[in-house]
Amino acid sequence: MVTWQEVVAQKRADRAKLLEPYTLPESALPPKDELYVYDFFDKGGADGLLSAKDKEITAIDDIDTLAAKIREGTYSATEVVSAYIKRATVAHQLTNALSEVVFEQALARAKELDDYYAKEGKTVGKYHGVPLTLKDQFNVYGVDTTLGYVGRANNPVTDKSKEAVLVTIFEKEGAVVIAKTNLPQSIMWCECENPLWGCTVNPRRRDFTSGGSTGGEGALLALKASIMGWGTDLGGSVRIPQVFNGGYGLRPSAWRIPYEGVPVTIDGQEHVPSVIGPMTRNLDSLISITKAVIENEPWTLDPKCIPIPWRQEIFDKHLSQKKFIIGVMKDDGVVRVHPPIERTLREAAEKLKAAGHEIVEWSAPDLHQDLVPILNKFYIADGGEDVKSDVNKMGEPFMPYVEAMVNRGPPISIPEYWHNMVLKRELQKKYLDKWNASGKLTSTGEPIDFILAPGCPHTAVPCRTTNWVGYTRVWNGLDYSAAVFPVSKVDKEIDSLNEEQKAYIPRNDWDRTNWPLYDPETMDGLPVNLQIVAGRLAEEKLLAVVKRVEEVLKA
Amino acid sequence: MVTWQEVVAQKRADRAKLLEPYTLPESALPPKDELYVYDFFDKGGADGLLSAKDKEITAIDDIDTLAAKIREGTYSATEVVSAYIKRATVAHQLTNALSEVVFEQALARAKELDDYYAKEGKTVGKYHGVPLTLKDQFNVYGVDTTLGYVGRANNPVTDKSKEAVLVTIFEKEGAVVIAKTNLPQSIMWCECENPLWGCTVNPRRRDFTSGGSTGGEGALLALKASIMGWGTDLGGSVRIPQVFNGGYGLRPSAWRIPYEGVPVTIDGQEHVPSVIGPMTRNLDSLISITKAVIENEPWTLDPKCIPIPWRQEIFDKHLSQKKFIIGVMKDDGVVRVHPPIERTLREAAEKLKAAGHEIVEWSAPDLHQDLVPILNKFYIADGGEDVKSDVNKMGEPFMPYVEAMVNRGPPISIPEYWHNMVLKRELQKKYLDKWNASGKLTSTGEPIDFILAPGCPHTAVPCRTTNWVGYTRVWNGLDYSAAVFPVSKVDKEIDSLNEEQKAYIPRNDWDRTNWPLYDPETMDGLPVNLQIVAGRLAEEKLLAVVKRVEEVLKA
Repeated sequence: MVTWQEVVAQKRADRAKLLEPYTLPESALPPKDELYVYDFFDKGGADGLLSAKDKEITAIDDIDTLAAKIREGTYSATEVVSAYIKRATVAHQLTNALSEVVFEQALARAKELDDYYAKEGKTVGKYHGVPLTLKDQFNVYGVDTTLGYVGRANNPVTDKSKEAVLVTIFEKEGAVVIAKTNLPQSIMWCECENPLWGCTVNPRRRDFTSGGSTGGEGALLALKASIMGWGTDLGGSVRIPQVFNGGYGLRPSAWRIPYEGVPVTIDGQEHVPSVIGPMTRNLDSLISITKAVIENEPWTLDPKCIPIPWRQEIFDKHLSQKKFIIGVMKDDGVVRVHPPIERTLREAAEKLKAAGHEIVEWSAPDLHQDLVPILNKFYIADGGEDVKSDVNKMGEPFMPYVEAMVNRGPPISIPEYWHNMVLKRELQKKYLDKWNASGKLTSTGEPIDFILAPGCPHTAVPCRTTNWVGYTRVWNGLDYSAAVFPVSKVDKEIDSLNEEQKAYIPRNDWDRTNWPLYDPETMDGLPVNLQIVAGRLAEEKLLAVVKRVEEVLKA
Repeated sequence: MVTWQEVVAQKRADRAKLLEPYTLPESALPPKDELYVYDFFDKGGADGLLSAKDKEITAIDDIDTLAAKIREGTYSATEVVSAYIKRATVAHQLTNALSEVVFEQALARAKELDDYYAKEGKTVGKYHGVPLTLKDQFNVYGVDTTLGYVGRANNPVTDKSKEAVLVTIFEKEGAVVIAKTNLPQSIMWCECENPLWGCTVNPRRRDFTSGGSTGGEGALLALKASIMGWGTDLGGSVRIPQVFNGGYGLRPSAWRIPYEGVPVTIDGQEHVPSVIGPMTRNLDSLISITKAVIENEPWTLDPKCIPIPWRQEIFDKHLSQKKFIIGVMKDDGVVRVHPPIERTLREAAEKLKAAGHEIVEWSAPDLHQDLVPILNKFYIADGGEDVKSDVNKMGEPFMPYVEAMVNRGPPISIPEYWHNMVLKRELQKKYLDKWNASGKLTSTGEPIDFILAPGCPHTAVPCRTTNWVGYTRVWNGLDYSAAVFPVSKVDKEIDSLNEEQKAYIPRNDWDRTNWPLYDPETMDGLPVNLQIVAGRLAEEKLLAVVKRVEEVLKA
């Protein structure tokens, strides 16, 4: 009988072997207690491994720019894939971001692409040779899909047709999967740690979490060790790691992006569905890959996908709209955001106003407060049975957050479950009505165009301290499309607690846990992201308005 | 303590009082044992009540034609509404089709519309003055929504904002609700009978069912006593009554038409969701009102609605497509269809082939067989608790089919429920893959455009004998859009059992119950409908191809 520890040892050894050709010696790495490793590559830390060209390639943030350079022959697919393999390996050494490694397959595919290019004089698809990484939840041929469970190891995908539809689409578009990335045990946590692979840390502060559940992608993208990441989001799992790492992440409405071929915890709980979302290093990349997936008509491959084509006209319309009415939500009424987020949002609102947009206050504390417990009920409607059975399969230990979650209560009955669906729908209706009625607040009588809100109540925080994800989760409950994007940084000088903040008395347990987490010293320099929310199935509008907002905020 | 019998007596007395001004004396009606009353109006049976103009108005099958006549001033809204009120009352006397009667409100609204027209010289909306009827499931201000339960009586909608979104939309378009119509206890049956209002019968054979659950609409539309009907469809409840009455019915994919404001049994079971569909007397009307609802952007009022606008370009494309590849499904592999349906489908396929379309055989018995039990599991996942509690509220008797349903088994657990969701999704994927792969069967290599299939395994049948709804329900499971339309009639001369049919040995209990139901003598002259299925969220395509097929079949 194999023990879970043996499986872990074997899996880690296998991974180490695959990484070995690109691994820096221990001596070349920063000491373990060096927390800030974000500039490791810039400072030349990996120069023995990465050539100048490798660094040049991986410095390109924009996917279309990189794809164009390959198309023009500036770089070969093999050069690009190799550069990212090296950088991803070192980034992994710094943050523990990778789970399954498919470097050999990636290099073989890159060669195939180069051969095709040499022979045919043209590229394969839109992303010929562009590397991509995926949360360890997407089925990729030949490797495991663990969901962070030891008990799911050593069960590789052996049937090409069982690969994630998303992988199929990007393969067709010429992109090359180089690795899968870490996630928390059970997936259902906003950090990134499990007994199989351990904890993925934040490259800007290695005692801080890289966020989760798609934490591996967060760390990799921050270190420019991936250029295209895909994750899943049930309560913020695409957005939170991007908030903690200063990147871009989109949670589309459900069934816009194909979930087929992506195993998930509590599969069948399609009632607050986990959705797939892209993660990138700039906004144009986020737009490009979202559009590419939809243009591949995923509904022809995934029966759950909604056949809404990419609506360029909606995108263009919002890109050229003169004035937006923006609902600014400072506070969800449950947990107060930390000072740098308060300040970033205030400054953003001021800039947007100065640029001619109309700012109204958006506040719906009752709806936010009521929705979150309804959503929580879905996740553990089975009394945690699904998660328990996966954890117990090999006898691995429960992570503390998993243990707390599965012991939150007994299973509920079908009538309770259905009733919870009704409660959710009623809140969705109230929120829609409130949005429609927001014309009462605006100068034109038109309702708000979108909501500008915090992404999280805090920046990255020490590992195992994240606790309130209402700022992201509420949009999952409403099924609104939402994106996060970097706006500012914590500045200990200007973000120290003022008198009012010092005197703040938290409102509830969540708030009491969250407020003292703020520390301008340890958080100094961490990215501050904001979130824009555009309503249901409104991805084109959302991406266009984020672009417009970003232009104003960057100006 | 009021008894359920007292409630029934009071509700029926209230209804009689509201109908009284338009009610024919008993002596003017056909004797109770006269089964065929379909031509009662044509033979002048109601001429004492209906004027020549009333008959002229109600003879118009097409909604847009009627609306145009009102717009041009040929008829006033009051004339049209009055004509339908009279005809509906008599149709009710013949078939027991009505539940809630709102004639006074309708006449008041018609007067309002006429006054507006007189004053402004223009009409309100697209359907100024056009009457409409609704299954007794839609919330209408001032009256009950019973779902066929005595226990839900005397609880009228007192808040205008709680009206069905669909009612709001048609009010905006100038249409006038005149009544709500009968449905079975619990809604969940393919016939139309409950202890509150009794049984709605088929005007072509009053010992036969008018179908269900939207049976009241079926009978009214057949007798030209409504011109626009709306029902709901969880397993065929819009389509079956139209099959049994030779009308037109559409089951759109879920959340294309707004369900908000429409109470439903086992509310919260959104996993094989009940959907709203239109029922009309001709195809153009079906197209017109479906389009009208969608053009009203129902997603701005119902948070579950999908924001897919009316796609005229898809409709037009299919309207002008030269050649279709049609998958003809003769048999679902579970229950064999009766001879007239077999013959109608065969003849239709021949005509379509002769018109230049390609016919391939569509057969997926395993998928149909596997899907139906999965769907059944959803309906009684609570062990029938929801239905039981409604029935038990006033102590009314269980209808036999309801009793059988709620005693089918104990409640299932959340893990079983989720697992059932997964099984359903897997079958949806298999069906989609099969459809995509159908190019192997066709001359061009292109997959089939649509499926032509029976609507039911039989025409209308004696009350309480309907048993197999797999021909409609399977599309609910797949969430494909499907429409039924009249094609032929039973002809006892040509549809008598041939030698092969006489020797047919049914395959299973369903088939054993169904096959002997066929009786060419009693069924002679009953309408035979067919069904067209066009895939998920494909309403524009579906309606266009039904139009094309009907043109060929009518030629």
